[in-house]
Amino acid sequence: MANSKSGDSSLDRLVRILSAFGADAPSLTIGALAVRANVPLATAYRLADQLLSHDFLRKDASGSLRLGLGLWELANRSSAALDLREAAMPFMEDIQAVVGQHTQLAVLRDDEVLVIERLSGRDSVVNQARVAGRLPVHRTSAGMVLLAFAPVHVQEAYLRGHPNAFLPSETGLADSRQALALVRGQGFAAFNGLVDEETTGIAVPVLGRGRIAVAALGVVVARDEGKVHSILPVLLTGARGIARAMGEHVD
Amino acid sequence: MANSKSGDSSLDRLVRILSAFGADAPSLTIGALAVRANVPLATAYRLADQLLSHDFLRKDASGSLRLGLGLWELANRSSAALDLREAAMPFMEDIQAVVGQHTQLAVLRDDEVLVIERLSGRDSVVNQARVAGRLPVHRTSAGMVLLAFAPVHVQEAYLRGHPNAFLPSETGLADSRQALALVRGQGFAAFNGLVDEETTGIAVPVLGRGRIAVAALGVVVARDEGKVHSILPVLLTGARGIARAMGEHVD
Repeated sequence: MANSKSGDSSLDRLVRILSAFGADAPSLTIGALAVRANVPLATAYRLADQLLSHDFLRKDASGSLRLGLGLWELANRSSAALDLREAAMPFMEDIQAVVGQHTQLAVLRDDEVLVIERLSGRDSVVNQARVAGRLPVHRTSAGMVLLAFAPVHVQEAYLRGHPNAFLPSETGLADSRQALALVRGQGFAAFNGLVDEETTGIAVPVLGRGRIAVAALGVVVARDEGKVHSILPVLLTGARGIARAMGEHVD
Repeated sequence: MANSKSGDSSLDRLVRILSAFGADAPSLTIGALAVRANVPLATAYRLADQLLSHDFLRKDASGSLRLGLGLWELANRSSAALDLREAAMPFMEDIQAVVGQHTQLAVLRDDEVLVIERLSGRDSVVNQARVAGRLPVHRTSAGMVLLAFAPVHVQEAYLRGHPNAFLPSETGLADSRQALALVRGQGFAAFNGLVDEETTGIAVPVLGRGRIAVAALGVVVARDEGKVHSILPVLLTGARGIARAMGEHVD
């Protein structure tokens, strides 16, 4: 693609335009968009026009821009996230129906947890996770499971990049390395109040080749309900079902 | 963006590259991609490289290209589809739990039905709908509801574009215009076997301003179960709940 004087390609500018939108800014004026995407206003106008014509952007009632259905349809018609979601949904629905609390599916992406799917009942406890939202690795049970069952070089890179990663003192764990060993040894993560003080997250790995996690399956329940040991078998069987539905070898 | 000699912009070529992937072709070699996107092989290589670096594409184990998590995350972080889905999910989960069959949410897009969400039980009847998939308007209950509660100019454009739109003779309806009037009058659509002979689709509109449908909420059940009249109140109350959750005025 053509490069601008500043050396970045059209695609880079396009990605910055699209990435400017998010849960915190679902709609933007063209001026705000230019600022957030760090492109000249004239460029923002030109790219926005092209994106509008492909329905990658749309104008809302107030004339502000939002991400369009065209982009959503394209991304959701076929992707790694969809394959995973398709395999997991029947199991997640059953777990949600039985446990009655948030049931979620997540993968490791960059240095964060990317939420692929979340099912919630109307009475579920508070939960920070949103579909396509990010959560910190070392502050969530899903993240700890994904990291504990990641290849060693991924673990080491994460620990190097987050030297101050810590767990609440109440866990009684010295550091993240000890926490990862614990999670790997017991095959699940269950931590109280890492994100919300009032909740406990319980997560297990969906294991692929070489016992590397391809995803984490978890629930978030009210704290101190003593439910971990009744919920764990449900999650472990669900995770095996998902792995099998994805064509992974299950021990 | 820069235009090629053939006059189409980089964005057009980019959209064609991304649009080449679909449920029928989740993974493509670079050669197949160039053919489907109608771009020269060298262009396909160059654009694919850029898209790989942004995780809009990824390489699978065999070296073929697939849509990447980056695109999925971007599209799902914020969009009209997400707002609708977020509002609808608690109601859809309840309906799915009570009815035990496919529960789906769809919107009108171009001249087709775009499926935004589908919840299915493991024992649900056969169903052609896929998330982000398209269905024909005049062969689905959801499509008939969306068209019946669309602005008049949308209806007329559809009927002009589909002069041979027809319903199975067994419905006893003369033509699509009569079918739309029926659906609009009764406030729901329930047709046997339009897509699958063995199933009945039942759909109601989620109504926004001016009693225009912003979405269709429906279930697919086994045919001839005589369930329409027991399921209809569940769908109608669910649709009102979704409209209210979206901030629409509910009569």
